[in-house]
Amino acid sequence: VIGSAQNPHVAAARPLLTRRGRAAASAFLVEGPHAVGEVLAGDHVVRELFVTDVAADREVELMRVAATRRIPIRVVTEKVLARLGDTVTPQGLVAVVALPSADLAGVLSAAPRLVVVLDAVADPGNAGTVIRTADALGADAVILSQGSVDVYGGKVVRAAAGSLLHLPVIPGVDAEAAVAALKAAGIAVLATAATGEDSLDDVMDTEALAGPTAWLLGNEAHGLPQGLMDAADRRVRVPLRGRAESLNLAATAAICLHATSRAQNRTG
Amino acid sequence: VIGSAQNPHVAAARPLLTRRGRAAASAFLVEGPHAVGEVLAGDHVVRELFVTDVAADREVELMRVAATRRIPIRVVTEKVLARLGDTVTPQGLVAVVALPSADLAGVLSAAPRLVVVLDAVADPGNAGTVIRTADALGADAVILSQGSVDVYGGKVVRAAAGSLLHLPVIPGVDAEAAVAALKAAGIAVLATAATGEDSLDDVMDTEALAGPTAWLLGNEAHGLPQGLMDAADRRVRVPLRGRAESLNLAATAAICLHATSRAQNRTG
Repeated sequence: VIGSAQNPHVAAARPLLTRRGRAAASAFLVEGPHAVGEVLAGDHVVRELFVTDVAADREVELMRVAATRRIPIRVVTEKVLARLGDTVTPQGLVAVVALPSADLAGVLSAAPRLVVVLDAVADPGNAGTVIRTADALGADAVILSQGSVDVYGGKVVRAAAGSLLHLPVIPGVDAEAAVAALKAAGIAVLATAATGEDSLDDVMDTEALAGPTAWLLGNEAHGLPQGLMDAADRRVRVPLRGRAESLNLAATAAICLHATSRAQNRTG
Repeated sequence: VIGSAQNPHVAAARPLLTRRGRAAASAFLVEGPHAVGEVLAGDHVVRELFVTDVAADREVELMRVAATRRIPIRVVTEKVLARLGDTVTPQGLVAVVALPSADLAGVLSAAPRLVVVLDAVADPGNAGTVIRTADALGADAVILSQGSVDVYGGKVVRAAAGSLLHLPVIPGVDAEAAVAALKAAGIAVLATAATGEDSLDDVMDTEALAGPTAWLLGNEAHGLPQGLMDAADRRVRVPLRGRAESLNLAATAAICLHATSRAQNRTG
């Protein structure tokens, strides 16, 4: 049982709590039995697993899978494990997982029908929730611009609830280049904007959402820059009918993605 | 300038950071110039305003409105103000606002067309986002069951972004009694459930959402109890088409409320 944060394995994993450390090691941390179980069930590269003795005794099946996959298991004290989590309760398990290697060219070559592009999204909870929503509604990829929050930070990982490893999530993309590439691939790019010329409610009456579609969403406070708005095929507003000035980003994404998912899966 | 947290005004306001203190004083705290400006612009009872000298100099118009309304203004140091906020940066202003007094009977007497009922919702960010979304999409009220998170806590107030004071928000209601009262008022009660017998996408093809509608949503982890599911007129699922096990509560609410808002505002 490792009882010191100076242990070399622990010391090597600690920098993964920072964006810089994750980039340098090409790895990130996944906490808790549910999320770690999902990672082990998929085909992700799990480099090592830190676990308390209590959790090792409790999570028999997880330990068996990890051993079968020859993943190094480091038994640590509660106190050491807490140094590897950024929640108060990492629930006894932290996995070191290699960053997925999806890229835009790979996504486009698979003829995607529903894509999300997030430009300069700042809030980790928003980014994580959008990734989870995109996954749930059957999107093929989520693309994030340079200048967006790091998708492999703890808060995004937790809000995404496993979805980060379910579909290609591509960070660090130049948003203008992504929009151009999506359009060149025959995908309609729809920008969400409070001032959009098209009402989503009217767009839903047409066939516009039934084809391959990318939704482009901007920063929580500032929205999309004019260049990206202009580059999109349409600018679409969700009609507001109350007194709130705006919808939250994740709510806007949920509404737009659901409308598209429905249009693309009509049986009638 | 008040420089001590032992000052009687400050000491009297501090308990409002807790649910118990808010209930005892029938008041809650609103932080920051934007939210405080919204409160002052409405017809809410603002009991007093704590402000740093820097913020008082900057927010000239807010100070003028507060003075016109004869709201006591307490100038405090940054350090004292920080004791009244639960964010790191309360941005120089904290208002003490009387709890709104909406009740279910009052809401029902106004013939509402779109209502949200949250049962045992635990996460303050979710509750606040649902209230903001309900406001934005033109809902007439949000009802929360006993056992839900306190809607006047700081995290809910911030996530709701002012919407808490835009539409009637009614906490502490018995959910079964609320469902019965909504049905008796001729409002269709639709429960959201992953196992619901009706797909939202199909329901949207009918006229079912065009009439007065209440959406019933349950706890983030456990969903709705069977009794409430059975009491609803329909149980509706948002079709999931990816690998995520579920949508987050606020995303589900956004999708269902948008579908209803659209159906109720058709011009065709």
